[in-house]
Amino acid sequence: MGDRAQDPVARATGLSDAALAGDRRALARLLTAVENRTPVAEAALRRLYPLAGRAHLVGITGPPGAGKSTLVASLIAEVRRAGRSVAVIAVDPSSPITGGALLGDRVRMQAYAGDRDVFIRSMAARGHAGGLASTSGAAAAVLDAAGFDLILVETVGTGQSEVEVAATADTTVVLEAPEMGDEIQAIKAGLLEVADLVVVNKGDRPGAQRTASQLRAMLVATPPRNDAHDRPQPKRPDVLVTTASTGEGVPELLAALDAHRIGDRGGTTWSARVARAEAQVGAIIADRLRERLAAPGRSAATRDIYDAVARHELDPFAAADRLLAAMSEDGARPPGATG
Amino acid sequence: MGDRAQDPVARATGLSDAALAGDRRALARLLTAVENRTPVAEAALRRLYPLAGRAHLVGITGPPGAGKSTLVASLIAEVRRAGRSVAVIAVDPSSPITGGALLGDRVRMQAYAGDRDVFIRSMAARGHAGGLASTSGAAAAVLDAAGFDLILVETVGTGQSEVEVAATADTTVVLEAPEMGDEIQAIKAGLLEVADLVVVNKGDRPGAQRTASQLRAMLVATPPRNDAHDRPQPKRPDVLVTTASTGEGVPELLAALDAHRIGDRGGTTWSARVARAEAQVGAIIADRLRERLAAPGRSAATRDIYDAVARHELDPFAAADRLLAAMSEDGARPPGATG
Repeated sequence: MGDRAQDPVARATGLSDAALAGDRRALARLLTAVENRTPVAEAALRRLYPLAGRAHLVGITGPPGAGKSTLVASLIAEVRRAGRSVAVIAVDPSSPITGGALLGDRVRMQAYAGDRDVFIRSMAARGHAGGLASTSGAAAAVLDAAGFDLILVETVGTGQSEVEVAATADTTVVLEAPEMGDEIQAIKAGLLEVADLVVVNKGDRPGAQRTASQLRAMLVATPPRNDAHDRPQPKRPDVLVTTASTGEGVPELLAALDAHRIGDRGGTTWSARVARAEAQVGAIIADRLRERLAAPGRSAATRDIYDAVARHELDPFAAADRLLAAMSEDGARPPGATG
Repeated sequence: MGDRAQDPVARATGLSDAALAGDRRALARLLTAVENRTPVAEAALRRLYPLAGRAHLVGITGPPGAGKSTLVASLIAEVRRAGRSVAVIAVDPSSPITGGALLGDRVRMQAYAGDRDVFIRSMAARGHAGGLASTSGAAAAVLDAAGFDLILVETVGTGQSEVEVAATADTTVVLEAPEMGDEIQAIKAGLLEVADLVVVNKGDRPGAQRTASQLRAMLVATPPRNDAHDRPQPKRPDVLVTTASTGEGVPELLAALDAHRIGDRGGTTWSARVARAEAQVGAIIADRLRERLAAPGRSAATRDIYDAVARHELDPFAAADRLLAAMSEDGARPPGATG
């Protein structure tokens, strides 16, 4: 409790050093700071970010009910059998506003409570729009610096922000299940565009192989993901079938992830890393500008401008121009002096 | 085709005047411009925004399979029976990246193809994060200026951005269905926080009344939505039961929407209008800053900074500080001169 009064940089240094030395409680506290975008998080990330960049960040997304949590649990077991370490960031859709309870499935992961090479963290899908990919990216950098070899980021793939989180991972796995409804089928088409690997889970259900065939056919018709025009065209994603509840197909999935990690350097992996960098930098810029607009002496004028827009007395473009002019004046001051 | 070469302001003036005079094709073109954030959209919104602010904007959200499209179709029929006009913005989750096909359910709305007082528009959940609430807000302002009395915005309520769209409507309806899975139950808790009205659809299924009772119990345990600390505490949302496929309960839903519109002035409606203004202004500021960073003479340096962050040679905070300093230099130039 007393350490809350401590200087953020000193506290960040203490927590970072402890986390790097293997202190999981310090690591958990750092991640809480990252999630809340506190000054401690900024100081810690400035310190830890240069130590990161070695881990393999894998995004796992798919519609509700596809079995993401079960597959993640099954992947953890497989990774541990190979003697490797794994961290999980589960972006929790249960509460977009206040955060909220863990999903019931997470309880299964309690099995690894005593294993130092497994670290599981739920993260609420909250905060400023666009902040989700930034926050999960920053959390991944902390876990990466702390030495985790494989980092899984799990999101529900039915939201723009949530899909962005998975799409900015080094390797993006899109999970599907056989026999899903019409609306979910439609969502699927969008998800396929961000996939490096497609997995049909619940492979023991009738129709799983047929779903896999349909997906392969859809992928032929879907333009492959390629943001970087000057890079080679990536190959179309493979479609695997797993039964996460029994572990069937999971060793093959891990092998496919490892193959993508090695084989795709310079392809979608590099594009995703640049996109992740942009998301993080963009969110920090947005935070800084918000701080400037909310600074003492400025916040009342900012509020008046938003109120005038809400009353339709001022159009949003005129409002943006006024605020940009105000921020440019503030920009004369050194960065960081505006909070 | 020839008019594409026209000055954006002249083109915006022409389209706006035509849309205000009732030309639905011009209205559709304006909405395409808004969706693509073109210069025509900016000029049109500057012109139309002061004419808006009269319509009732209702957000309808809920998990996949709750029957949102059917309920919207049923609400349209009810609104038309009352002789009122209605516009629908359906935020289409089928493709977060390239846009995509309309959902199959939309086909039902074709019934109103010849009715000038019904206007239905699908909008892809794509583009820059945080842009979704801004784009739907701008589209609503255009439809509002064009004279639509009621504007329904439909989103799948399982993504942060999508929930934000519904939450920034004047009245937010959260739709549920009986007998949904565990993961969806968890999502529900988060959705309830943004609800002004909760609707249990598929009321003809066994368990509908029980689901409604459970939701009423959950709402007692959920803190009511209230962003504005200086405003009266809003009342807890009512829970209604509808069967959209037969129209059962839909007149009561429309009455409840109208009652919220009238009864909540200054409550969550005002907070939502300010939040909508902030989303629109914030997205314009972000666009302007992106334009500055991508401007000729700046874009190569910007790209180098993102690449250095992706290689972990530069931390995201240092990168943000460098870009902010560069943007402040540019800020000396008049706004709009940076594209």
